[in-house]
Amino acid sequence: AQAQSQVTVFGILDLSLKSVTTGGVTVNQMANEGMLNSRLGFKSEEDLGGGLKAGAWLETAVNPDTGTINASGKLWHRRSTVSLSGGFGELRLGRDLDPTFYNLSVFDPFGTLGVGAGFNLTTNLGSGAATLLRADNAVSYILPADLGGLYGQIQLAPGEGVPGNRYGGARVGYLKGPWNVALAFANTGTATADDFKLVNAGVSYDAGFAKLMVLFNGARYGAKRQNNWELGFTAPMGVGLLRASYQRADASGAGTDANDAEQIALGYVYSLSKRTSLYGTWSHMTNKGAASFKVGSPPNGVAGATSRGVEAGIMHAF
Amino acid sequence: AQAQSQVTVFGILDLSLKSVTTGGVTVNQMANEGMLNSRLGFKSEEDLGGGLKAGAWLETAVNPDTGTINASGKLWHRRSTVSLSGGFGELRLGRDLDPTFYNLSVFDPFGTLGVGAGFNLTTNLGSGAATLLRADNAVSYILPADLGGLYGQIQLAPGEGVPGNRYGGARVGYLKGPWNVALAFANTGTATADDFKLVNAGVSYDAGFAKLMVLFNGARYGAKRQNNWELGFTAPMGVGLLRASYQRADASGAGTDANDAEQIALGYVYSLSKRTSLYGTWSHMTNKGAASFKVGSPPNGVAGATSRGVEAGIMHAF
Amino acid sequence: AQAQSQVTVFGILDLSLKSVTTGGVTVNQMANEGMLNSRLGFKSEEDLGGGLKAGAWLETAVNPDTGTINASGKLWHRRSTVSLSGGFGELRLGRDLDPTFYNLSVFDPFGTLGVGAGFNLTTNLGSGAATLLRADNAVSYILPADLGGLYGQIQLAPGEGVPGNRYGGARVGYLKGPWNVALAFANTGTATADDFKLVNAGVSYDAGFAKLMVLFNGARYGAKRQNNWELGFTAPMGVGLLRASYQRADASGAGTDANDAEQIALGYVYSLSKRTSLYGTWSHMTNKGAASFKVGSPPNGVAGATSRGVEAGIMHAF
Repeated sequence: AQAQSQVTVFGILDLSLKSVTTGGVTVNQMANEGMLNSRLGFKSEEDLGGGLKAGAWLETAVNPDTGTINASGKLWHRRSTVSLSGGFGELRLGRDLDPTFYNLSVFDPFGTLGVGAGFNLTTNLGSGAATLLRADNAVSYILPADLGGLYGQIQLAPGEGVPGNRYGGARVGYLKGPWNVALAFANTGTATADDFKLVNAGVSYDAGFAKLMVLFNGARYGAKRQNNWELGFTAPMGVGLLRASYQRADASGAGTDANDAEQIALGYVYSLSKRTSLYGTWSHMTNKGAASFKVGSPPNGVAGATSRGVEAGIMHAF
Repeated sequence: AQAQSQVTVFGILDLSLKSVTTGGVTVNQMANEGMLNSRLGFKSEEDLGGGLKAGAWLETAVNPDTGTINASGKLWHRRSTVSLSGGFGELRLGRDLDPTFYNLSVFDPFGTLGVGAGFNLTTNLGSGAATLLRADNAVSYILPADLGGLYGQIQLAPGEGVPGNRYGGARVGYLKGPWNVALAFANTGTATADDFKLVNAGVSYDAGFAKLMVLFNGARYGAKRQNNWELGFTAPMGVGLLRASYQRADASGAGTDANDAEQIALGYVYSLSKRTSLYGTWSHMTNKGAASFKVGSPPNGVAGATSRGVEAGIMHAF
Repeated sequence: AQAQSQVTVFGILDLSLKSVTTGGVTVNQMANEGMLNSRLGFKSEEDLGGGLKAGAWLETAVNPDTGTINASGKLWHRRSTVSLSGGFGELRLGRDLDPTFYNLSVFDPFGTLGVGAGFNLTTNLGSGAATLLRADNAVSYILPADLGGLYGQIQLAPGEGVPGNRYGGARVGYLKGPWNVALAFANTGTATADDFKLVNAGVSYDAGFAKLMVLFNGARYGAKRQNNWELGFTAPMGVGLLRASYQRADASGAGTDANDAEQIALGYVYSLSKRTSLYGTWSHMTNKGAASFKVGSPPNGVAGATSRGVEAGIMHAF
């Protein structure tokens, strides 16, 4: 028998064996997301006629190592939206990824995940901003797909009284032939008078035999700043993909000038099919001054310490 | 490929922008349920032969503004039942809506939801009764559908030691041509010697160009009483539905005689399809004495204060 | 319309009315699992070619009496795994049943569930071992299906710092004609220097008109031991199945020699279809010394007391 339903059920399970050593402490563990976040989702799309469509999307984050949901405690942590789309673009309401997330994923060979992710060096500068990835109560407008390569979106999320939740941001980009370039910026309200400000931009060029990408991510909160520069590289190799990246994080202001860090990462994804891959990643990070970044946790970060990690896993999408 | 399953996956996502002003305090927010409760469900029905059917139903309540589940913390907050049905009717076990809920929804143009809902003036009189909508551990019997318009159900739910959870109730109604009339009553055990008692009744007449409905809901707990009278009206208008209601709540006993309240509501549902609608609702409520009802929360209710609200949203069912 | 998905949605809802009397205290309640655990699951299987398959499995435990999830608080309490399988067998990662669980279910007419389950006399001897059924972070290898009746699996689960979670175990069995025989053993790390050790074995013979089974389960923790012997019997009768079992639990060591217990159980499953059954079970247990086992809870166990129970329910699978 077949399901009597107009909804699509989809998901990803990704589990890896991971070893992280930070400040001389090593933790070996089963980890949830070396390549892609584990998830289960339900989405609906209805054609309303005249080019208009309605859509709904619910997506939970799964920790398959222990069977729990995301530590946020929100069942639909990844996305819970309803939307109307048409020739004008898409109007979308609910909890969702925010505009400043996308460049951090698209222009990083490791896509914010695993021991090699550039996201390991991303910070909210202690501002309490909870919007590095997603926003609650968001109203988003997304440009239509047929603008000759131009794409973009804008999002406003009232904080509804929760410090670190009030978000306004936008992203605009251009994708044409081998080139992709995008710019995004956002303000997030905090518990203090200062907003947390983020601006990031990326460029990638796909030469076929290899793809190069450059990502800049700049954060500012009061007198504190951190500018990250990342150089990324991917290349098809055999039935898989070689991935490599180098990133520098440069802190400044409020006595943080010495707290810089660097990360280098190398990995390979072996594709068993379009939906299933084996992967392995290695990374090495150095912290200076009071910087205490880490390639994964546990163990906790340690000021000025080296952090390194290696993981091997399997990802299956359905 | 197609799902290898005999289960139906269904749901509703409903998000609105809502502004509520109570006692001079205004809160603007994204809200979850201006028209219908957001939900995700899974149901199965099996034909056992001889007219007998088995069924299962799991339904979670979704807050798509923030991605959380219902504040009760129960994943299957809306319904978790298994049932056997046939010519004799249906025997149903589990957590479910209770008989005294239905009149409050069926004979209200706003169906217990949003700033215009008559349910905004419903109370358990401080009894701790947790059964205004649903009951845990319920054994329900529902009359078969082919009784010439007669319908009804009875439900017994042992409290299993939780004050406010022991429920016994029944509903009987008659639907014929343009007329629908129903009566329901229930007792709920509390932490005191007094049961919380509810009786409600509704009548509706559908003249085609408009539908009129009258709803009475009477609550009693010890010496306290509250009687609510609501007049409702709906009319097809363009591709949508005009909705209006007026309700009075009359409290009495135990020094509450002055704590009366009134609500008036007006709204319009614009149907984009059978499954997708845009809607807008406005309502205005006055409290007298120590009555502190509100058209929505936050903000909190304020004794004797005016509460008013407006919301506009989108509902998509799948 | 049909689901656009390659995932199978499946589940079971099982609700019963149950009465348990222990130490003279009787509790009547609606219960969740007289025959099979209530659940909702999502599974995917992809053919990778060359005999290789990838799979994913998410399965939540449902308490349909109140709409909650399992008391562990883990949404995917029952299983969350990703696996690769082929001619070599199956490699599986994630939270899953462990090898020492299977004999307790397969060689018990009541399959670890309900007032008649042999599992009612199973203990971790106060060791804190949380692995009687499942393990987090597990790496499992399962033998292929075509070994002429030989089957087996091995599982290693690092505790990741949680006492009672570090598990290593294996099971091997042989299924041929009417005979099935299997042996399993495991070690679980605890908060003390002693591991909790479990060994169990079962034999069953299916004569067609009846099936006989014998199960041994031996637990050891430091100086404490408990050996359980169970004799089980099932027989097709009418459109259903008669089930009966007798079990003895023999404690020894560390002053527990007198703490023995016995249970006898009798039940009948009436099959309405392959997917839907009605069932009834009766059981009676005696405790000696300080033994405080029980056929169900609530009420709590009482040292040296008799515990007896009866339940009648419905199970529907989809």
